[in-house]
Amino acid sequence: MAPFRIQTRDTASAARTGVLSTAHGEISTPAFVPLASKATVKGLLPAEVAALGYEMVLGNTFHLMLNPGPEVIERFGGLHGFMGWNGPIITDSGGFQVFSMGHGTVADEIKSRTFRDTEKPRQREGAILAIEEEGVRFRSYIDGQERFLTPEGSMAVQAALRSDIALVFDECTPFNVDRDYTARSTQRTHRWLDRCLSWQREHGPAGQLVYGIVQGGVYEDMRRESSAIVAASGCDGVAIGGSLGAEKQQMYEVVSYAVAELGGDRESLPRHLLGIGEVDDLIAGVERGIDTFDCAMPTRLGRHGTALVADPERRWRLDMKKRRLMDDLGPLMDGCPCPACSLGLSRAYLCYLARAGEITGMRLLTAHNLAFIAALMARLREAIAAGTLAETAAALRAGASPWA
Amino acid sequence: MAPFRIQTRDTASAARTGVLSTAHGEISTPAFVPLASKATVKGLLPAEVAALGYEMVLGNTFHLMLNPGPEVIERFGGLHGFMGWNGPIITDSGGFQVFSMGHGTVADEIKSRTFRDTEKPRQREGAILAIEEEGVRFRSYIDGQERFLTPEGSMAVQAALRSDIALVFDECTPFNVDRDYTARSTQRTHRWLDRCLSWQREHGPAGQLVYGIVQGGVYEDMRRESSAIVAASGCDGVAIGGSLGAEKQQMYEVVSYAVAELGGDRESLPRHLLGIGEVDDLIAGVERGIDTFDCAMPTRLGRHGTALVADPERRWRLDMKKRRLMDDLGPLMDGCPCPACSLGLSRAYLCYLARAGEITGMRLLTAHNLAFIAALMARLREAIAAGTLAETAAALRAGASPWA
Repeated sequence: MAPFRIQTRDTASAARTGVLSTAHGEISTPAFVPLASKATVKGLLPAEVAALGYEMVLGNTFHLMLNPGPEVIERFGGLHGFMGWNGPIITDSGGFQVFSMGHGTVADEIKSRTFRDTEKPRQREGAILAIEEEGVRFRSYIDGQERFLTPEGSMAVQAALRSDIALVFDECTPFNVDRDYTARSTQRTHRWLDRCLSWQREHGPAGQLVYGIVQGGVYEDMRRESSAIVAASGCDGVAIGGSLGAEKQQMYEVVSYAVAELGGDRESLPRHLLGIGEVDDLIAGVERGIDTFDCAMPTRLGRHGTALVADPERRWRLDMKKRRLMDDLGPLMDGCPCPACSLGLSRAYLCYLARAGEITGMRLLTAHNLAFIAALMARLREAIAAGTLAETAAALRAGASPWA
Repeated sequence: MAPFRIQTRDTASAARTGVLSTAHGEISTPAFVPLASKATVKGLLPAEVAALGYEMVLGNTFHLMLNPGPEVIERFGGLHGFMGWNGPIITDSGGFQVFSMGHGTVADEIKSRTFRDTEKPRQREGAILAIEEEGVRFRSYIDGQERFLTPEGSMAVQAALRSDIALVFDECTPFNVDRDYTARSTQRTHRWLDRCLSWQREHGPAGQLVYGIVQGGVYEDMRRESSAIVAASGCDGVAIGGSLGAEKQQMYEVVSYAVAELGGDRESLPRHLLGIGEVDDLIAGVERGIDTFDCAMPTRLGRHGTALVADPERRWRLDMKKRRLMDDLGPLMDGCPCPACSLGLSRAYLCYLARAGEITGMRLLTAHNLAFIAALMARLREAIAAGTLAETAAALRAGASPWA
């Protein structure tokens, strides 16, 4: 049975609703997938993540292979038992993390420079030593040991993690390389795709789905070719990764190039957009036919004291550390079911907690931000089904509350 | 109506059960009071603290006067509205904190040297500038500003916080001073007691109870005298503070000196032991007639990766960062209702979270440790009521689980 069933389609865009079926349950799409990179959605318990409206979380092969190591997680029958999450889990292959060390600023480019993110650039996670045809040699950020990660090795770790959806190991091509490097890198990614699928067919756990990853930089021909190759590879779904452009409009075009090759009989392949989660980008991605998204943004912002609110002028962000909020006795957002809003805690109290660096504040803002994104995705799903996506998207872009 | 009603008494010790009535509800005693020093039990929400079995929390005048300031909390009608805790709140007067800066190592002595605690000594919180008859001059650890705290000032902040129980402002005499200094310091504390009570009678919020604080160092005559003076002062309850001795046996004696003066018609004064919360000390305190206790230990240990377990050999502590626990697939403790134990999360996972410094781990261990102490106190209350305190205390001291 195909793992993905399209339910409704928008007539004016490529948007669609569907149900993604995995060994641990179904996901209604379009959906956002919160990060549990290191086997926890930081600060929250699994039941709380589910109560906020999430059906799947994302674990990270790179981090978990280094700590606690696949052999520990295997003893629990996989990541589900280890972390106590019984729903679907998708695992990133480690490609992004291993290359973000080597290319140095891939992550910064994608997250910061490209989209002018005000967050601190993520810490370099170690040091890459060599990119070879066989795999990638790097130094562990945990113990300084030299490690070698291959496509087969990534799939073996993901097999040990028993994720419901594994991602193939790819090279996440950086923003600052030329067309020629991008072409060679993308071709290697395609060879690694075949190796991942071969390994997984022979050794992967029963029921584990595998998504291929589309690369090709910002070049239309290469993105289309990569998308077609991935779609024809026999994988269960398509993830779009890598450098997506210098600004939002270019990113949207790059996504459209990839999706353009996924029509016809490839339409039932579920489509995941890697590392994208800004409010306007989620809306744009849905309009372009993306089914699932993951991003550190909502949870990371929450830990650093920023709340998501219906304010497009400020990129839907409210810096809760601003002293003036200490005078604001109102709730963060009316209608929000997160603990902070539903308990009637004030902006003043949340401001105080954020300024004081209290972990209670990190936890509350993380939950609020995830509640906001869950509501946004629910609104988009409802609008697609109701045939009102254009109006809903326009209202949300103009600053409508997802609970309005 | 007297705020405290004794319900049952142990025949073989000074232990008793009772009900303490406050403006925001009742507390069944003997009880432990978790710290919400900075308007949050770090990592937990109010409803979770209540669900763990707690009826009262402790806020801290010193920290809250500096940040966010009483004027912010006053706008919420007090600390209850600010932090979302609707049960009783007791507030420390700031005496301990302000003096722990000045005497430098009071906190370290009481928490570390005296009882050979392995925790890191707490950070110095600022710098004391002068102890005067009028009050104490110090430098704020928040903004470096010079501040002056008087007995009346402490009561005014506690009035703004609208705590159910306020503590008078005292000098917490350090361990390393001589009998002469202790005598002079204790006499000043008694003068401050009178000033606090006068201020509070005139300006305090309706229904706020006030506890006096017994000082007197380790000297029997001074402790007894201080206890008698506090009991006769017209306060609603008696707190025992200050340096309690060089080792546990001396602390227990010092507590007994103070309680010895609280018999007869003073018996209905509720008795609080400040800053004590080790498992064996709680049992010993209950046997000596203490009704309530507060301590940073269970919550602070949890944040730093230590779990409370039924292991007297290791002072009821399990260092969850020990690598060997990564092989332990069992739960932290059978029968414990905390989220970690009741969700079936393993010691291996908790070890992994603690080693990785994940805030989810801090939160889970904090909740577990509070669940452990809540169960311990419940066992002691039941045993007093059932006339079996001696056996129960012996079993708990020998390593019985509070859920056994």
